[in-house]
Amino acid sequence: MSVFQQSFHVATRGRSTVDVSAEVERMVRQGGIHTGLCHVFCHHTSASLILCENADPQVRRDLEAFMSRLVPDGDPLYGHIDEGPDDMPAHVRMTLTQTGLSLPVSGGRVGLGTWQGIYLWEHRTMPHRRQLTVTVQGE
Amino acid sequence: MSVFQQSFHVATRGRSTVDVSAEVERMVRQGGIHTGLCHVFCHHTSASLILCENADPQVRRDLEAFMSRLVPDGDPLYGHIDEGPDDMPAHVRMTLTQTGLSLPVSGGRVGLGTWQGIYLWEHRTMPHRRQLTVTVQGE
Amino acid sequence: MSVFQQSFHVATRGRSTVDVSAEVERMVRQGGIHTGLCHVFCHHTSASLILCENADPQVRRDLEAFMSRLVPDGDPLYGHIDEGPDDMPAHVRMTLTQTGLSLPVSGGRVGLGTWQGIYLWEHRTMPHRRQLTVTVQGE
Repeated sequence: MSVFQQSFHVATRGRSTVDVSAEVERMVRQGGIHTGLCHVFCHHTSASLILCENADPQVRRDLEAFMSRLVPDGDPLYGHIDEGPDDMPAHVRMTLTQTGLSLPVSGGRVGLGTWQGIYLWEHRTMPHRRQLTVTVQGE
Repeated sequence: MSVFQQSFHVATRGRSTVDVSAEVERMVRQGGIHTGLCHVFCHHTSASLILCENADPQVRRDLEAFMSRLVPDGDPLYGHIDEGPDDMPAHVRMTLTQTGLSLPVSGGRVGLGTWQGIYLWEHRTMPHRRQLTVTVQGE
Repeated sequence: MSVFQQSFHVATRGRSTVDVSAEVERMVRQGGIHTGLCHVFCHHTSASLILCENADPQVRRDLEAFMSRLVPDGDPLYGHIDEGPDDMPAHVRMTLTQTGLSLPVSGGRVGLGTWQGIYLWEHRTMPHRRQLTVTVQGE
């Protein structure tokens, strides 16, 4: 068994999702591991990683609509407001989703289902530069 | 260290939970790894994996009741509606729960707590055939 | 590659968060693995593990406020009520957050972002003794 690890950065356009599937797949191929696991990690507390339906972009717009309604910006509930009305909601959205994803590696590729894509979900309204780390372990 | 990986399928009866603990445990024993990690992955975007209290089935009925209220079917919020009133809610439910679970392997067994069971949660109202992949890594 | 695994216990003061970052970091150093993954697992269904902003404690108070509103104690929706008004809400909170966290290990340390801390979130109102297991795999 061996381990391969590499980081990369994603420039987000503010609140929205970015498909990082191809970059993760590229790193798994580079790691040269045939069977094992791939872990993707986001080093931030106001952005998430999600697996999402990859055929209809409306699914991600609907997810955003649901989350905006469940975790509204500017909610008077919060005391942590110095960084703006979208800051604490970003932390809540992150807590309700994932900061890291582990995915099977099979036949040297990421073993996703047909309709699964890997997305970085930026929860802040302003653009940010986000660091992701991919770790692949296996044979 | 070595890696063991195998997939299996679960036939769901539509929206409900299915206990897959025994099947995961069987694969960990088959893999012959004493100490390490076991990863269970669901290759779909409208079903989830959860760890849940395994003593009282009412807990899972209450979880379903909570989720049905939080993410109602037929919500006019959504634009992705071609596959039915339960389709987009299934994607949201998946996003709020887990697609993969990593579990410690100790003494050749899945190191769950006394009251923890592994459940596949089907979020669509119609029965589906779901693929799960178990990956075990360790010594 | 090698694997290191060790459990420890945390005494909680009832519903609140406990920073376990230092203990996890200590175990990663003890494991002596330079590059790989660290997995932290909570063996319970009414407590969670979260990564959270570690600079302003108000963030965790706001998270608690959000969760208390979303998943109120004593909700008449539930049938699983024998263990008190906070029992089923604790299971729901656990389901909406994480039972296990996988984190990159880089340079012999847990590769967290600057503002990420690892917290055990006790969801029951009474103090509990919680078991966590740390598994580190890598080179």
